[in-house]
Amino acid sequence: MPLRFVEPAAEYYRVPLTIRHLLDGVLTKAGDQRILYRDQVDLSYREFVGRVGRLASLLEAVGAKPGMTVAVMDWDSHRYLEAYFAVPMMGAVLQTVNIRLPQPQIAYTLQHAEAEILIVHRDFFPIVEALLPLLPQVKAIVAIMDNGFDAVPAWAVGEYEAMSAASSPDYPFEDFDENAVATTFYTSGTTGNPKGVCFTHRQLVLHTLAISAPFGASDAAPWIGVGDVYMPLTPMFHVHAWGFPYIATMLGLKQVYPGRYEPQTICALREIHRVSYSHCVPTVLEMVLNAAEDQGADLAGWKVTIGGSALTRNLLARGHAHGMLLGAAYGMSETCPVVAAAGRRGPPADVGEAGVPDALTLAGVSAPLVEVQIVDEDMNPVPHDGRTRGEVVLRSPWLTPLYTGDQTATAALWRGGWMHTQDIATMDPVGQVQIRDRLKDVVKTGGEWVDSLQLEEIVATGEGIAEAAVIAVPDAKWGERPLAVVVPTPGTIPTLDSINAPVDYAISQGLITRYARLDRFEVVDQLPRTSVGKIDKKRLRARHAEGASS
Amino acid sequence: MPLRFVEPAAEYYRVPLTIRHLLDGVLTKAGDQRILYRDQVDLSYREFVGRVGRLASLLEAVGAKPGMTVAVMDWDSHRYLEAYFAVPMMGAVLQTVNIRLPQPQIAYTLQHAEAEILIVHRDFFPIVEALLPLLPQVKAIVAIMDNGFDAVPAWAVGEYEAMSAASSPDYPFEDFDENAVATTFYTSGTTGNPKGVCFTHRQLVLHTLAISAPFGASDAAPWIGVGDVYMPLTPMFHVHAWGFPYIATMLGLKQVYPGRYEPQTICALREIHRVSYSHCVPTVLEMVLNAAEDQGADLAGWKVTIGGSALTRNLLARGHAHGMLLGAAYGMSETCPVVAAAGRRGPPADVGEAGVPDALTLAGVSAPLVEVQIVDEDMNPVPHDGRTRGEVVLRSPWLTPLYTGDQTATAALWRGGWMHTQDIATMDPVGQVQIRDRLKDVVKTGGEWVDSLQLEEIVATGEGIAEAAVIAVPDAKWGERPLAVVVPTPGTIPTLDSINAPVDYAISQGLITRYARLDRFEVVDQLPRTSVGKIDKKRLRARHAEGASS
Repeated sequence: MPLRFVEPAAEYYRVPLTIRHLLDGVLTKAGDQRILYRDQVDLSYREFVGRVGRLASLLEAVGAKPGMTVAVMDWDSHRYLEAYFAVPMMGAVLQTVNIRLPQPQIAYTLQHAEAEILIVHRDFFPIVEALLPLLPQVKAIVAIMDNGFDAVPAWAVGEYEAMSAASSPDYPFEDFDENAVATTFYTSGTTGNPKGVCFTHRQLVLHTLAISAPFGASDAAPWIGVGDVYMPLTPMFHVHAWGFPYIATMLGLKQVYPGRYEPQTICALREIHRVSYSHCVPTVLEMVLNAAEDQGADLAGWKVTIGGSALTRNLLARGHAHGMLLGAAYGMSETCPVVAAAGRRGPPADVGEAGVPDALTLAGVSAPLVEVQIVDEDMNPVPHDGRTRGEVVLRSPWLTPLYTGDQTATAALWRGGWMHTQDIATMDPVGQVQIRDRLKDVVKTGGEWVDSLQLEEIVATGEGIAEAAVIAVPDAKWGERPLAVVVPTPGTIPTLDSINAPVDYAISQGLITRYARLDRFEVVDQLPRTSVGKIDKKRLRARHAEGASS
Repeated sequence: MPLRFVEPAAEYYRVPLTIRHLLDGVLTKAGDQRILYRDQVDLSYREFVGRVGRLASLLEAVGAKPGMTVAVMDWDSHRYLEAYFAVPMMGAVLQTVNIRLPQPQIAYTLQHAEAEILIVHRDFFPIVEALLPLLPQVKAIVAIMDNGFDAVPAWAVGEYEAMSAASSPDYPFEDFDENAVATTFYTSGTTGNPKGVCFTHRQLVLHTLAISAPFGASDAAPWIGVGDVYMPLTPMFHVHAWGFPYIATMLGLKQVYPGRYEPQTICALREIHRVSYSHCVPTVLEMVLNAAEDQGADLAGWKVTIGGSALTRNLLARGHAHGMLLGAAYGMSETCPVVAAAGRRGPPADVGEAGVPDALTLAGVSAPLVEVQIVDEDMNPVPHDGRTRGEVVLRSPWLTPLYTGDQTATAALWRGGWMHTQDIATMDPVGQVQIRDRLKDVVKTGGEWVDSLQLEEIVATGEGIAEAAVIAVPDAKWGERPLAVVVPTPGTIPTLDSINAPVDYAISQGLITRYARLDRFEVVDQLPRTSVGKIDKKRLRARHAEGASS
């Protein structure tokens, strides 16, 4: 295409979209603004930027080079924020290590990412010591003592604070290609080894810019903005703490880093520093609500974005009762992560049974520069009627370009030029996405998709049912059929009719397709669960397959 | 630098930063949202996007090609918005013609930009007819009759609406290099021919993303956001209407285009459509306030960003009295334009004499990805003390890379790797920029910079002075000295002492340097003014130079 291009001025300064430039202008606006770590550290942005330089200098001194992986194992801290900037700004790749993975998987991710330098908090010294024999590529480990006065371990090159203080704040950061990789981390898949994703400087800068616009939020829905005091409640090893530390720093907000999550400390930090914006998974919100109720802590006016799993109406109502402003957002490891956020758009929101606007619990509307499609198995878009299910597929500048070193998974991820989320959802006429199920859990029967999650919720409301799970089982005629696995209440003997009673009602109300009517069920004493307490459908399916073949 | 790069999935979709992608996801969120033109047109976004395709199809049919310049001469309309998207999206360059320039300068800009296709509103037919002999390169002119029933002129290829209706909405827009030029227009300099600036797709997309973040705004200061109803009050030929039509469209806001600015129509549209966000120069705000006071129109809650020239405390107070939310922003033709906006950051704002926060009248704090420096003549940054003057120089991804076809001006614009604004300003410790003077008007005397604007304001407060202007005149000892040119009130004979009385007071209060004390003045009957009513300092300087040499 014969487009028009111009030759810029000889001295024109071309700004690449690199992490470094997120700091442009920040010191002039917020040089004296504060960045805090628990009750231990209180830095100005001026000091923070100096410490970013010091960290780069000390990493270079212990052998870090552009292109090398530098891994961090820490709780949420100012040091982690320093690494968010210093490591990519020097051209190296930041690996944010998921310290909740089983030890062998931590070893796997450090090996796979070829991490050559580690920055490790003392709480993880036992893990690192155990893993060291498996990590011959590691050149240097910087120890974070975090106000502990024990001796620095012999295998460490030194202590973070002491090394930082002895290093120059004037690291000569340079501009470079914005398509260089900035970060990498691993998804904790339920099958096989964790899969590595990575993000370039350009991707992170565009995510930061686009997500700092209040694209879904309104007065009723929370979002980050100027004037807020920010505290992350999503671990910084988890998808860039959803990108908000970059946004908060770019906007020059006051920031509070809570270290290891302790509900009482969180409530205290929130009150002392008037934290006004945070983000977390529902479990952490529940933890905070419990602690606040125990302590009588004030949560009023606290804006919290909820992601990771569904924000239920009950949890939303509980937060609202405390005067919190809650709203859901949507994303995953592969998406940097934010691609959508809930809000109230157009006419006043529906107020659900719990007395809160239902719209706030949805995955929400797409962010700027994000295209969300809900597609059927042949990649045809489904109607935006709020009812028809399909897989969420995405296009956006900030989606991981691959699973590192896994060509098969990479090809499946980007099949057909769209990133496949494996989430099953609906979209309503105003673009609000509602996540319904995981692709692997949905029951494809007679050309219809039945949400296992919805069906098991319906079954669980039945008389005499303590718990229920629904899985798909193969069926010669229908392709698949739903199988309900139920735990009855003591003394109850469920029948197909008793189990189908609430299902029939839901069908009669148009809430679920008639293909959801059960023709088989199993009774068990208890449902298998994963380490984080979710129903383990993989084990249920395996168990059923064994039973069927035996 | 040996950075890390990855090979994306074979089917990875790389999103270029082109105008086309500002529309990503908009139809899913806002397909039924409205775009209005006066009381004449009411479109859904779905129709609008179809019309963008139609416009591209019709332009192609009359000879438009990638790389070609398509010029628009229209009032603020949905058609202009269509051109904002369709022309760059097809790879062509949109020239937004300043229809307020003198006719020979309009001809010059059309020649210089090599505009081959024109889209012209009937109000400008006389101009175009007069200029046609001078524009041999023009291949086709599309006439906008705008509900007028006259015959389409013989020199036009057809009428916009008829041609649009007959064209396909399914223009095959493609992805292409984001560094292609998207728009061009001309600054109305006071000397010589207008200078052409241009902006690439990448620049416009980054401007749109970064400026949609509320980077300076707070509750007290206005900015655009989700839920707003948008109406431009800065002409769309003027620096992309400050970029807000792109932001409003990307966010899927309801938009109202007012056509030619008529204060009564503006007030009526504002009320009928509940317009909540606009932007304009102070003169338009005054016009609107006058009309509202005449009509008794309600302006309460209307957020308006003021730029172009200073938002005075008096005008701010007048707007506040109507319940408007006003705040200044800063930029120019060369800067896309927004680089800073006023707001209230940190502790509660100072409330000035007029009862409004002074901070709202400042140029404000820098936008994300913008670096503002205030430098002396040797390019050294001056202290951020709110007092020391220097020239505003900028770095950002969205500054014009050149003046088209003018190497000398281009080199001066980007001297030393920073874009020179020729604005004299101060910066305070929290990064708030206050514009003080134009570089060409400042008086450089004894190593100090004296603002001509500040000094003439002080002189004008003196007894017996009706009006005053201050210009720099050469001085062998001091380099330059200020010369006051005053218009006395009838019957008054000013003396150097009487003129210096308010200056001495200002010096004693530390408001202005002692180098500002006048040692010369001239008395005139009236001050020369430019066509827009500003004091014509160029003529004053020329007149004085003649007088001095004669």
